[in-house]
Amino acid sequence: GRGEAVKESERENTLSGFLTTAVLSDSAREKTIFIHGKLADQEAVVILEKTPFREETLAEIFNGSKLKLDMKNDIYSTYRLQAPPHLNEIKTTVVCPATEKHVNKYKHQESFLVEEAWEDYQSITLPYIQEQSFSVQWVYNILEKKAEAERIVFEDPDPETGFVLLPDFKWDQKQVDDLYLIAIAHKKDIGCLRDLTSDHLPLLQNIFQKGKEAILQRYNLPASKLRVYLHYQPSYYHLHVHFTKLGYEAPGCGVERAHLLADVIQNLQSDPQYYKTRTLYFPLRADSGLLGRFKEAGRL
Amino acid sequence: GRGEAVKESERENTLSGFLTTAVLSDSAREKTIFIHGKLADQEAVVILEKTPFREETLAEIFNGSKLKLDMKNDIYSTYRLQAPPHLNEIKTTVVCPATEKHVNKYKHQESFLVEEAWEDYQSITLPYIQEQSFSVQWVYNILEKKAEAERIVFEDPDPETGFVLLPDFKWDQKQVDDLYLIAIAHKKDIGCLRDLTSDHLPLLQNIFQKGKEAILQRYNLPASKLRVYLHYQPSYYHLHVHFTKLGYEAPGCGVERAHLLADVIQNLQSDPQYYKTRTLYFPLRADSGLLGRFKEAGRL
Repeated sequence: GRGEAVKESERENTLSGFLTTAVLSDSAREKTIFIHGKLADQEAVVILEKTPFREETLAEIFNGSKLKLDMKNDIYSTYRLQAPPHLNEIKTTVVCPATEKHVNKYKHQESFLVEEAWEDYQSITLPYIQEQSFSVQWVYNILEKKAEAERIVFEDPDPETGFVLLPDFKWDQKQVDDLYLIAIAHKKDIGCLRDLTSDHLPLLQNIFQKGKEAILQRYNLPASKLRVYLHYQPSYYHLHVHFTKLGYEAPGCGVERAHLLADVIQNLQSDPQYYKTRTLYFPLRADSGLLGRFKEAGRL
Repeated sequence: GRGEAVKESERENTLSGFLTTAVLSDSAREKTIFIHGKLADQEAVVILEKTPFREETLAEIFNGSKLKLDMKNDIYSTYRLQAPPHLNEIKTTVVCPATEKHVNKYKHQESFLVEEAWEDYQSITLPYIQEQSFSVQWVYNILEKKAEAERIVFEDPDPETGFVLLPDFKWDQKQVDDLYLIAIAHKKDIGCLRDLTSDHLPLLQNIFQKGKEAILQRYNLPASKLRVYLHYQPSYYHLHVHFTKLGYEAPGCGVERAHLLADVIQNLQSDPQYYKTRTLYFPLRADSGLLGRFKEAGRL
């Protein structure tokens, strides 16, 4: 209640007694850190996030700061700038008392880059995928219009080369800046990149061409504004293609996981068995079962 | 040279007279701002970036800061924290004197995906690169130890297969979470990916192998935590390779611009002329001269 708030704000520093148990995760890029610890004998999670710059405070920052030179080369120099604290605040969120669920929610899972030769795919990855028998019932529901039928943006019903195009869950469809659609093939026997051969070129070219056309028609975005790619490893083993807006840094669009559809097509054109001979690289999270298999096999 | 550096570091605050002309771009997510302005009558670009949190300073931050309550609701509360300036530095990069090119480089611009067939490279891209004759003097300064010599992490001096490995400007080297190093080849006649043939495999393999070893040695990061790649288009036309930490979403690590060095090596092994036959895709900013050329040629 408000009474508590007043009392709290009067204290000099609630966090001065905070004892860190562990850093749950952090982002050097976003300047955030998630910390698990104890606050007056209670479990707590503290989230720190540096604040964005504000144009109206720049002059004061330039005039009122200390500057330490780090490096100078030609016209380039770098410094560490120590700004007045009130112009450089840190947004601080405290969850207290925190439960185990809070702690796990903020825990970062490290990932590791795996090197998968074709033989590794056959002896490690494929058996793992088959044992897990991941359900793709929700994908079939979409293809059969048992779910999400009203969300479909475009469909080509051809059983060999056809697909359904619909917005990804991550996209709220409020603006095209973070446009994210998924094309799901009607064909059910292609699990991932490793299954593709030149036999699938008509399917891939059809998805590429008609997917781009449908997005131009519906969202007025030309092909030159699109990043069209597959994931390897995918998050589900039924062929699908990601269409995201260029300039939007969609999760999973990094070079370590994404494969441009245009490159996949070229690769299969020049070598029908390309994805059955190449070593592929991909990241796996520390808690991934597949990573465990690679470790057991001495491949990490 | 270093003499300048010493002189510079003695000054209290080079930036106290900086006058902002315009904010070129900023990112609330990354806590960066790019500012165009004047520094002692010279055109300058100043880049400010808040620094990532470091675990070892957390206790001091918790104990030595002022805390202002913003909101309290049930177990959740938010504060503005004012930390001691030396624990909350702002990484500052100054480009001075800056040219119009620098200013435009940092201006936020939409980008477009370009499709470059080998013929397009020869008739559009290569002539453009040659006309511009971009200076790489700062690269030669590094290779010749005329600048940044003390920043070098590793060097193999071989003129054919050797390289210099050093931290990228973007990395403040305070934590490995956003590790970013660049390997710059000693060989001067390789501008970009398009110049590579199987003749360069010894060089590429050497950079890959020794770069990974040096990073393991110096930063204790194994190859499975690294993303090693080239850019196409690169930002300067002298062969260099990016080493960034897996999990850190480094700018330019997206599939539309980055090419895994491991893939480049495999591609050249299977086809010595791979990069002289393939269509390559890359984003270009709206204000890029090269984009203009692709438009004139009717290729966009």
